Amino acid sequence: MTDNLTEDLDDLARDLDATHVFHSWSAQGQPSQLVIASGRGCRVWDHSGREYLDFSSQLVNVNIGHQHPAVVSAIKEQADLLTTIAPSTVNLARGEAAKRIVARAPKGHSKVFFTNGGADANENAIRLARLHTGRDTILSTYRSYHGNTGAAIVATGDWRRIPNRYARGHAHFFGPYLYRSEFWADTPEQESERALQHLRRVIESEGPATIAAVLLETVPGTAGVLVPPPGYLAGVRELCDAHGILLILDEVMAGFGRTGRWFAFDGYDVTPDLITFAKGVNSGYIPAGGVIISDEISADFDAHVFPGGLTYSGHPLAMASIVATLDAMESEGIVEHARQVGAEAIAPALTELAEKHAVIGEVRGEGVFWALELVADPETRAPLPAAEVGRIKGALLERGLLPFIADNRIHVVPPCVVTADEVAEATAIYDEVLGTVQL
Amino acid sequence: MTDNLTEDLDDLARDLDATHVFHSWSAQGQPSQLVIASGRGCRVWDHSGREYLDFSSQLVNVNIGHQHPAVVSAIKEQADLLTTIAPSTVNLARGEAAKRIVARAPKGHSKVFFTNGGADANENAIRLARLHTGRDTILSTYRSYHGNTGAAIVATGDWRRIPNRYARGHAHFFGPYLYRSEFWADTPEQESERALQHLRRVIESEGPATIAAVLLETVPGTAGVLVPPPGYLAGVRELCDAHGILLILDEVMAGFGRTGRWFAFDGYDVTPDLITFAKGVNSGYIPAGGVIISDEISADFDAHVFPGGLTYSGHPLAMASIVATLDAMESEGIVEHARQVGAEAIAPALTELAEKHAVIGEVRGEGVFWALELVADPETRAPLPAAEVGRIKGALLERGLLPFIADNRIHVVPPCVVTADEVAEATAIYDEVLGTVQL
Repeated sequence: MTDNLTEDLDDLARDLDATHVFHSWSAQGQPSQLVIASGRGCRVWDHSGREYLDFSSQLVNVNIGHQHPAVVSAIKEQADLLTTIAPSTVNLARGEAAKRIVARAPKGHSKVFFTNGGADANENAIRLARLHTGRDTILSTYRSYHGNTGAAIVATGDWRRIPNRYARGHAHFFGPYLYRSEFWADTPEQESERALQHLRRVIESEGPATIAAVLLETVPGTAGVLVPPPGYLAGVRELCDAHGILLILDEVMAGFGRTGRWFAFDGYDVTPDLITFAKGVNSGYIPAGGVIISDEISADFDAHVFPGGLTYSGHPLAMASIVATLDAMESEGIVEHARQVGAEAIAPALTELAEKHAVIGEVRGEGVFWALELVADPETRAPLPAAEVGRIKGALLERGLLPFIADNRIHVVPPCVVTADEVAEATAIYDEVLGTVQL
Repeated sequence: MTDNLTEDLDDLARDLDATHVFHSWSAQGQPSQLVIASGRGCRVWDHSGREYLDFSSQLVNVNIGHQHPAVVSAIKEQADLLTTIAPSTVNLARGEAAKRIVARAPKGHSKVFFTNGGADANENAIRLARLHTGRDTILSTYRSYHGNTGAAIVATGDWRRIPNRYARGHAHFFGPYLYRSEFWADTPEQESERALQHLRRVIESEGPATIAAVLLETVPGTAGVLVPPPGYLAGVRELCDAHGILLILDEVMAGFGRTGRWFAFDGYDVTPDLITFAKGVNSGYIPAGGVIISDEISADFDAHVFPGGLTYSGHPLAMASIVATLDAMESEGIVEHARQVGAEAIAPALTELAEKHAVIGEVRGEGVFWALELVADPETRAPLPAAEVGRIKGALLERGLLPFIADNRIHVVPPCVVTADEVAEATAIYDEVLGTVQL
């Protein structure tokens, strides 16, 4: 495939990008050189045919893999019929998508409000919670990411909140993270108990009657795939119930197969009031997200106007891609596959890597949702310095692996359809590159 | 086309919608019955073949008309190649889209930050303005709509802000609107002068050194197609310059052909620092929006990280639809057509309607962007009551016209490709229905 014409296309893409595209979460001075023109399954490639094994799922969204033929076909069919229509009209694809999403949700959740992505899903969940409770405050964790719009970015706990703090009514607390415990805990049980005690004290100190909702990623993703310890989520639900506080679970990254379950919270004894989703629901083939609403909350708006909306809410092309994605995930057993490949291929491979490389301080995860915590010193658990993490990233890319890097961690987050062979291929690359790290 | 099968599909769509879809800006108790299955140009229809002439362009976004074959083809071609990719990579469709958008922008605006729609475009313009100036306050008008996310909804001035006021740093002022002047003005020139005097006093009173930006729809749309009077926008620019305040023009509804120009501000002697867009840029075929950034502002982020982003920024399918839309609009002369059909068909037709029906208090607009202000009394200009406006809406729909109704107004906002014959057809329906209004 490599010839002048296609190399020229790569150069043209880089040139246009550097000249005209303003990129997110980055300085613009050193534009990316990584051109992606096409892909299939767990692989993507540029115009010249240089191929990468995608162990990032891009921004942890391509759960069904790149260019799934059934989803591409559904998009093309709907494109021939109707690309866009106003949200106030009735559209069959929209109803079919909502029906399939609700079918995966807990009983007593019948309605979906559609958005363009995860940020505005969280925006609208926050709006619903405030209107339902008549209260102001939203509690969320410091180690969280809930999106980049006005309220979502202030609900976010990580550094990205700091230059964007223009919304009121948000307070933050610490969630469980045993490897870097904020609670001087030694065991998962202790971490869970103490994290709940901390949340109880924050609720009491903020004033329980002022708190509309606790907003949590079921498994905090960008923060490091922080699988909650036993009893934590059920404990949060109990605290919420004791004070008339709603529980919003953000399943934007964790939902639709990532953990090896349809929703991450299916693995815990907890029912949220509001569930936000995006990414995996259609693997981002068309921008889409939404909120699944409990019947109790949705009933508030039978006679009262819901004061939120957006032009592309329930966009027909997005809806058709959701229908096809969820149908393919069901008929091809993709969620079960993610669970199995996680347990049988990824978990043993990463455990073995950790035994071999002292730079891996901890391996955490489930399904196709894993993190390797890289440390400069296994004793102190000091994070590996950014420069060395950057070198690792470059070395992985050079060897044809597209990694997901966050702070001092490699997130091992391939599409749900990843095969055991692809896991072995990626593991060999991680192994080779981590072997070059000098502690 | 009407048979049991297709009627069943309409019923199924209504049933699924009522059961599972939570709708924006409305109470849920009386779900819409208007099923739309497909369309072409200025027409849409349900599964049974019941057809409507679309004089709403849905939410004033389908500028190129429904199902333009070149845009549908481009979506299908890109769908076969690559639907989605992370914003940090380089993608040719993204560069090509940015190049075409920048080609329409004023000199000294080389870069585009892509979003999923207009709300997050305004969110990011506000973010850029605050970071560039180091100031907090965003001024916008009471009669405005800038989106529904956290900061965008508080920048919005209309009632939709009121239940959503959770962001700080927003203040509002009155813009020009001669028909319902806030300044006791009698002429367009007086309205312009006095509106500028009012803005000057608001800037002085809020504290010029605290104001990051004035955010204005170039032609306020949902508020009633309020074409700015002579000298107003240039005067705002002057006030901004005098105090180091940035000017953000929101071209989400007014841009890409709606006014008969590529940008609405092309008709005025004014250069904004930041331009937000969505809707017309690809007629909403795929959710997309963005911010066009002046080189001075974008240079701030050559070495500093821009703290904003979203998973679907620069989404390849959205980008391919932008490229095809802008190319078709250029090659088919769609913007020029919008100007011409506005001047030669819509303006005379609506003027004649207003002469015939006392319920029309004013006709305003240009291009394919018009409003009929309906009044209960032409002398007092009291708005026509909501119940009567609702009756008119129902009667228009019954006669096969899909209208855009806002408060006491009919917005006459067909796709840019509307023909003189379609204008005549719509005018006859408006005429018939307005003839039934008893003042």
